Order: sequence, then C-alpha cells, then structure tokens
Amino acid sequence: MGKGVFITFEGIDGVGKTTQLNILCKQLQKLGYTVVKTREPGGTWLGRQIRQILLAPTDQAISQQAEILLYAADRAQHVQEIVKPALAAGKIVVCDRYVDSSIAYQGYGLGWDVEAIVQINQKAIDGLMPHLTLCLDNEPELTLTRTKGDRIEQRDIAYYQRVRQGYQEIAQQYSERFKIISAQGSIEEVSQRVWKIIQERGLV
Amino acid sequence: MGKGVFITFEGIDGVGKTTQLNILCKQLQKLGYTVVKTREPGGTWLGRQIRQILLAPTDQAISQQAEILLYAADRAQHVQEIVKPALAAGKIVVCDRYVDSSIAYQGYGLGWDVEAIVQINQKAIDGLMPHLTLCLDNEPELTLTRTKGDRIEQRDIAYYQRVRQGYQEIAQQYSERFKIISAQGSIEEVSQRVWKIIQERGLV
Repeated sequence: MGKGVFITFEGIDGVGKTTQLNILCKQLQKLGYTVVKTREPGGTWLGRQIRQILLAPTDQAISQQAEILLYAADRAQHVQEIVKPALAAGKIVVCDRYVDSSIAYQGYGLGWDVEAIVQINQKAIDGLMPHLTLCLDNEPELTLTRTKGDRIEQRDIAYYQRVRQGYQEIAQQYSERFKIISAQGSIEEVSQRVWKIIQERGLV
Repeated sequence: MGKGVFITFEGIDGVGKTTQLNILCKQLQKLGYTVVKTREPGGTWLGRQIRQILLAPTDQAISQQAEILLYAADRAQHVQEIVKPALAAGKIVVCDRYVDSSIAYQGYGLGWDVEAIVQINQKAIDGLMPHLTLCLDNEPELTLTRTKGDRIEQRDIAYYQRVRQGYQEIAQQYSERFKIISAQGSIEEVSQRVWKIIQERGLV
C-alpha cells in the first residue's frame, strides 16, 4: 500500500460527513502532513463520463449488474489514478465514501446482491482497503431533516434505516478497520470523537 | 435459462466467424426456428455509451481494472436486455463473441489478470453461460493476411498466437461447452463442420 495512510468517511446523507472530513483534513495539514482530499464518485475523466451515463435523463433502464459494474469502474480508475499514487508518495488520503457505500446503499438500502457487490469491488480496488474507516451515525429522521427539510417521506426513512443497518453489519464484520462514531452533538463534539480515534490508532 | 438455446461464436479476428454465424442463423431459420442474432459489444443504449468512452480520442488512460469493468457492464446490460428475454421466449440466440473473448483477448492476449476477468464476468452474466460455444481456429498468419493484407507485423502475430492459445486453454477447461473447429478449407467445408456439431449436440 506504499507509505501513506488511507482514511475513508462513511455515513448516511446529511449526517455531517463532509464537514467532519474537512475538519480532519485541516487538523492533519496543521500538523504538517500532506493530505489529499478526494471523493467518490471520483474526479477522474473516466468518472465524469460514467457519471453522465448514470445520470442521463433517458428512458433506458440500466440493469442492476451493469450499474454495480459502472460504479466499480469509476472506483477502479479513481484508485489507480489518484489514491494509489498519493499513498505511494507517502501522503494521507482522506476519501469521502468508498466500497462500504456501495455495500450499504446498493446492497442493504436497495436490496441488491451484496455478495456480487463485494466481489466486483474487491477486483475494482485491486486489494486497496483503507487503514481506517470513520462512519458517522445518527437517526435517519434527524439527518433527513437536515437535507430535505419538512419533505420527509416514510419511504425515505425506511430506506436510510436499511442503509444504516448495512453500516452496522459492516462494522461487526470489519471491527478493526470500521469505526462507528455518533454524530449527535455539536460539530466540535463530533470532531473531537473523530480525532480521538485517529490518535488511538496511532495513524498520526 | 428459460426454454431457448444460447450459442456463441469465438475466434481470432479474420478467422471467418461472422460469415459462419450468418450461415448457421440462416440454416436454423430455414428449419423454422426463431433466431436472435446479436453481438458484443452489445447493441444496447448503455453499450453504445460505454463504447464511446472506450474509443474516445483522448489522452486519458483508462486503467486495466476499469476497462475490464466497463466491458463487463456492457455485457451485463446485453444479457439482461437482449439475451435473457429472448431465451425466456424460447428463441435461439446466436451471439458473436461473449465472456470467452474477454478471457482470450484481455487475459491471454494482453496478459491481464485472468482470474479478475473471470470473476467479474461471472457476476456480469448472472450465471448465463452458453449451451455451446463454437470457436473457429486457424493460424494467425493466415487470418491476419485476410484482415490486414501485407501489413502484418511480428508483434501482431505474437499477440494473436497468445489469444489463440487462450482459446485452447478454455477448450481444455470447458470441453463440454467449448468446441474448437478448424477454419481451414472453403466456407462450405467449415459450415458443414459447424452444422455437424449442432446436430451431434442435439440442439436442433
């Protein structure tokens, strides 16, 4: 994996993931580390082309398997073009969403074939798993209020509850790598929880 | 797999694959069968979009893993949208190239990770393997003369020899499904060999 450190952030929409990721990156930079902040879907040329296909306003349905493969192709390019070179250069890579998002959202949320998602993504990332994954956790009812205001539907809550459940299953399976962090409380309180784990793990 | 019959054609470029596929389809239609003639890359909307990405005149290199995944996404869509519905309706589907082409060309020809190609494609096709694969075989020196005239380079010959070797490895591994047929002789001689196998296998 080279000399760098690879950290990913996970969590349901509206949980405050990007805010905490930005705070962590600034803290690391203050300490003198070279940080590469990146996100999925990846900012590569290929990623943008794939994105255009997935979001195209068309009647053409894309099959479940094809969609899993397209997301995985975006991820594969992102890993080869951005993440691996940065790690090889000894940098800290902090990525907003990674493989776990596909498992939680498509697998648990949409009920797609988890085994297929895992196996396809294992090949896509070419063995590159994060050293640490920080998963912010909160009640879907609360996070949805943040992103959608009053327009919350019961269907959305049920969907995000399944996604949240997916993250909890992942945490049980990969307890060493995958840490669930309560997102309740102030931004500062949550960022202190994040920093505590970074220090405990001896990553900085 | 439904009630239909799924036949694929394989072989190196210029071996006469498409000619023989067309002859077989006509023979089957004459006997009253409903035949769906199709090819990879698939003629779906998604397949066309993916093709545009893969063939785009750009300096942006696409990683090996991403390219395998993009081809697999095209195949997944083709299987779900065209092949499976036709088989479920009891038709005979005859497809020009399938999974074996990825293994032979990318795996053996280009030296990419065969295991990754096999596993990704197993997920892409959702278990749908052909009842019979007919692989036309000839010396690369002869097939290249047909496609390239006198402009044959040693590098091309070596590449197609590796692809041909790949097909032979597949034939050993899947001897029940995968039949190698000599493409030497006249078009009629070769088509008689193809037809003999179709009859021997009791497929019509």
